[in-house]
Amino acid sequence: MALVPAPIRLVLASASPARRALLRQAGIEPTICVSTVDEAALEANAPADLCPGEVALLLARAKAEDAAEQLDGDHIVLGCDSVLELAGKVYGKPRDAAEAVQRWQRMRSRSGVLHTGHWIIDDRSDGSAGTLGASAETIVHFADLSDAEIEDYVATGEPLRVAGAFTIDGLGAPYISRIEGDHTNVVGLSLPLLRELLLEIGVSWRDLTTSG
Amino acid sequence: MALVPAPIRLVLASASPARRALLRQAGIEPTICVSTVDEAALEANAPADLCPGEVALLLARAKAEDAAEQLDGDHIVLGCDSVLELAGKVYGKPRDAAEAVQRWQRMRSRSGVLHTGHWIIDDRSDGSAGTLGASAETIVHFADLSDAEIEDYVATGEPLRVAGAFTIDGLGAPYISRIEGDHTNVVGLSLPLLRELLLEIGVSWRDLTTSG
Repeated sequence: MALVPAPIRLVLASASPARRALLRQAGIEPTICVSTVDEAALEANAPADLCPGEVALLLARAKAEDAAEQLDGDHIVLGCDSVLELAGKVYGKPRDAAEAVQRWQRMRSRSGVLHTGHWIIDDRSDGSAGTLGASAETIVHFADLSDAEIEDYVATGEPLRVAGAFTIDGLGAPYISRIEGDHTNVVGLSLPLLRELLLEIGVSWRDLTTSG
Repeated sequence: MALVPAPIRLVLASASPARRALLRQAGIEPTICVSTVDEAALEANAPADLCPGEVALLLARAKAEDAAEQLDGDHIVLGCDSVLELAGKVYGKPRDAAEAVQRWQRMRSRSGVLHTGHWIIDDRSDGSAGTLGASAETIVHFADLSDAEIEDYVATGEPLRVAGAFTIDGLGAPYISRIEGDHTNVVGLSLPLLRELLLEIGVSWRDLTTSG
């Protein structure tokens, strides 16, 4: 009888249900440990010459380090942070419905860049002790929505709950005409990039999955 | 009190749980009516000069027409068909695990094109009576999997159940490094293309969604 080793535990330093769902679809059941870092303060104090991907990476690292400090155990910690860049400006969640409508009126028929920073910390007792990260970029092309379609979409409430005022895996999917890059990066966690980071510390995807 | 009209009913002429899940995520609860067309015979009799996207469109139309004939009612019918093209050849489901491993050994570090044909038939009593379709193409770049990773992925069984021997929304996601196009097209139903086809018959996404 072959012994199947227990999977390595992955701690996700994020409360995002979308990120958790991505990992579960790919066979990983993460432990959730929400970081307590003051993201707004970190962003405000970040060096002014950082590009959006570098800021996202800085925040991802801070979240991962915060979660790693909270926990005492044998696991790998993952932190992520996403921002949408449109015409050189960075966008988070819209303040209200009026702002979401305005954003979509600017976004339609144009493209933006979704940056997600990823940071992993190997806290396994017999692990690599590695701490490393990278950010990934995906170009997102928005469809040419009519004013009525924008009103309908904003009325669902979804754009108010997400950075960039859109989802690619929810009610916003019909309004994203195409992407260049990885769609899981747009959802908030690039699974192919996570695979590459894990391989750098000698861990394969299978080592993290719950089914043998 | 505003009266919210009942949504237009969408009939999906496909047994694919992935296609159904895409529609549900985007707010549409489709009625399922699996077509009884002999896909293998249709493909064998298709004109030899059709490109993969045209064959997918032919099959999508046959499925939609078959479902429309089975049903008597007030709805819009949607048929879809997907194929993977790799180095000029078209691939369906692998026969067995050995073939899935061979496929991935060819696919890794390369790209393929996922073609999905879409056909809609407007069978509403007061509708446009339109019957129209289009196919969409998404370029899929496969990561550089090691032999061990291929063995692990094939051992999950998933590649044996899907055309092209991979998923982009399941256990295969870490192994798709990037795409150019629309990821829902790779799953089997392009939501942005469906939106455009519906607009051509005067129907907006909101008209099909179950939440007012």
